[in-house]
Amino acid sequence: MELKNLILSFFLLFLLVGISSTTAASTGKIKVRRPCKRLMFYFHDIIYNGKNSKNATSAIVGAPAWGNRTIMAGQSHFGDMVVFDDPITLDNNLHSTPVGRAQGFYLYDQKDIFTAWLGFSFVFNSTRHKGSINFAGADPLMNKTRDISVVGGTGDFFMARGIATLMTDAFEGEVYFRLRVDIKLYECC
Amino acid sequence: MELKNLILSFFLLFLLVGISSTTAASTGKIKVRRPCKRLMFYFHDIIYNGKNSKNATSAIVGAPAWGNRTIMAGQSHFGDMVVFDDPITLDNNLHSTPVGRAQGFYLYDQKDIFTAWLGFSFVFNSTRHKGSINFAGADPLMNKTRDISVVGGTGDFFMARGIATLMTDAFEGEVYFRLRVDIKLYECC
Amino acid sequence: MELKNLILSFFLLFLLVGISSTTAASTGKIKVRRPCKRLMFYFHDIIYNGKNSKNATSAIVGAPAWGNRTIMAGQSHFGDMVVFDDPITLDNNLHSTPVGRAQGFYLYDQKDIFTAWLGFSFVFNSTRHKGSINFAGADPLMNKTRDISVVGGTGDFFMARGIATLMTDAFEGEVYFRLRVDIKLYECC
Repeated sequence: MELKNLILSFFLLFLLVGISSTTAASTGKIKVRRPCKRLMFYFHDIIYNGKNSKNATSAIVGAPAWGNRTIMAGQSHFGDMVVFDDPITLDNNLHSTPVGRAQGFYLYDQKDIFTAWLGFSFVFNSTRHKGSINFAGADPLMNKTRDISVVGGTGDFFMARGIATLMTDAFEGEVYFRLRVDIKLYECC
Repeated sequence: MELKNLILSFFLLFLLVGISSTTAASTGKIKVRRPCKRLMFYFHDIIYNGKNSKNATSAIVGAPAWGNRTIMAGQSHFGDMVVFDDPITLDNNLHSTPVGRAQGFYLYDQKDIFTAWLGFSFVFNSTRHKGSINFAGADPLMNKTRDISVVGGTGDFFMARGIATLMTDAFEGEVYFRLRVDIKLYECC
Repeated sequence: MELKNLILSFFLLFLLVGISSTTAASTGKIKVRRPCKRLMFYFHDIIYNGKNSKNATSAIVGAPAWGNRTIMAGQSHFGDMVVFDDPITLDNNLHSTPVGRAQGFYLYDQKDIFTAWLGFSFVFNSTRHKGSINFAGADPLMNKTRDISVVGGTGDFFMARGIATLMTDAFEGEVYFRLRVDIKLYECC
C-alpha cells in the first residue's frame, strides 16, 4: 500500500513537471504580445532656418535640386534630409530638464503629402537610464499615431526589440515640432 | 510482477516526456529555417533628372563634391544619395495598380562598381495588408541576387524579422529601374 | 529493498531530467549573455578633402548650410553626412589585405561634441566569410568604447543580432581614422 502511494505521488509529480516544462518551452517560442518594458518620452525639434543658430537642434543637410538648406523644399519637403540632436523630456515642456538626446536623421519622402523616414537613437546617460535605443521606420506624419520599429538597443536596453508609437504633440510653422514617443519593447534582456 | 511492470512503464513514459520537452525547448532556441511568411513584390524607381518632375519618384539629395543633383556622379555614382517614394506592384508592370509604397533612401557607396546601401520601408494601407516592413542592408547590385535584412515591422508585420532577396528586374539608362523583392520572414507574430 | 532502491534512483533521475529540461526551456526565453559568435575587425576611413581622390575611401555628401563637401563643418562637424567604402582588416594595419568592405554612411549629429550616427554593413565575400552584417546606432565617439546594434545579417550571418563595441584605434587630423569593431552576436543561426 505504501509503495502504491509512493508510485502514485511520483506519477502526479511527474505529470506536473512535464506540464510546467512544456509551458516554459513554448513561451520561449511564441512571443507574448504584452510589452516587457514600456517607456514614454517627448522630444523637441527646432530646425535651423538661417536665423536661429543658437536654438536650432537640427539642420537640413540634403535637399533635392529644387530645394536649399535653410528653407524646407516645396512638394511636401520631398527630399529634404535633416540631421538632429533633440532633447528628450519626460513631459511636453521644451524647457524641462532633458533626460537624454534623440540623435540621427529624418527625411521627407513623399511629394503629395508630408511623410518622413526616420533613423535615429535615444541616447541616455543618467542614473535612471544608461544606454541607447535604436529606431528605424516610416513616419506618415499626417496620421494621428504611427508605428516605427525598435531595431536594437544597448546598455540598459541590450538586445531590445519592439515598436514605438509616434504622435505629433505640437507643430509650429516649419520650425518647431514635438513628438510623443510611446516605446513598447517586446524583447527585453 | 505488477509493480515491476508499473515501474517499467513509468520509466518509458518518463523518458518520452523528457525527450519531448527537450525538443520543445530547443525549438524555442534554434529557429527553423522555413519562412513563416513569404511575400513577393516589385517596386519601380524613376530618378529625377531635371526634366521629368512629373513622373519622377525619386531625387538625388546628396552628392559628393564632384557631383550634382540632376546627373548621377562619376565613379559609379559614389556618394550619390537618393530619396524615393516608389510604387509597389504585384507584377512587373509599372502601370499596375500599386499595392503600397516603398519609401526611404539609397546611396551609392563604391567607386569602382555599382553598389548601394538601402534604408527603407514598404508601407501598406489596403484591405490586403496594413502596416510596414522595415529594411536595411548592402545591395551589391551587379550580383544577380543579393540579400538585405528585414529589421522590423509594424501592423500586420508586427515584430517581423527576416531576409529580402533583391533582383534587378529592369534597368533602363540612368532613369528607371525595377527591383523584384522576395521577402522571407523567419520571425512572425 | 531492491524496489526501494529502484524507486529512489527513479526519483533522482527524475529530478535531474526535470532540472535540465527546465534549464533548456528557459534558455529559449531568457537569452544567455554569452555571445554565440564573436568577431574582431578593424576598418579604415580616409575622407576626401579635395586633394586625395586616389586614396579617399569616403566623401562628404551632405552638409549643413554653413558647411561644404571638402572641409568638415564647424560646430563639431554637425550635419556632415559621409558615405564610405572602407577596407576591413584583421589587424590594425591599413595596408593589410582587406577581408571585406565596410559600406554605408555616418553623420555627425551634435554641435558641442563629436558624435556620430552610423548605418552600414560589413560585406564579406571570401572563403572565410560570405555574407553581410548590418549595423545601426549612435556613436558618441569621444567615449573610449561605445556600443551600436547589429540589426541583421545575411549569408553566414543569417538572422544575426547583437552588439558591436567600437573603439577608435587611430585618429589622424581630419583625414584618417581607424575603428576597432568587436562584434558580439547573441542570436546566430
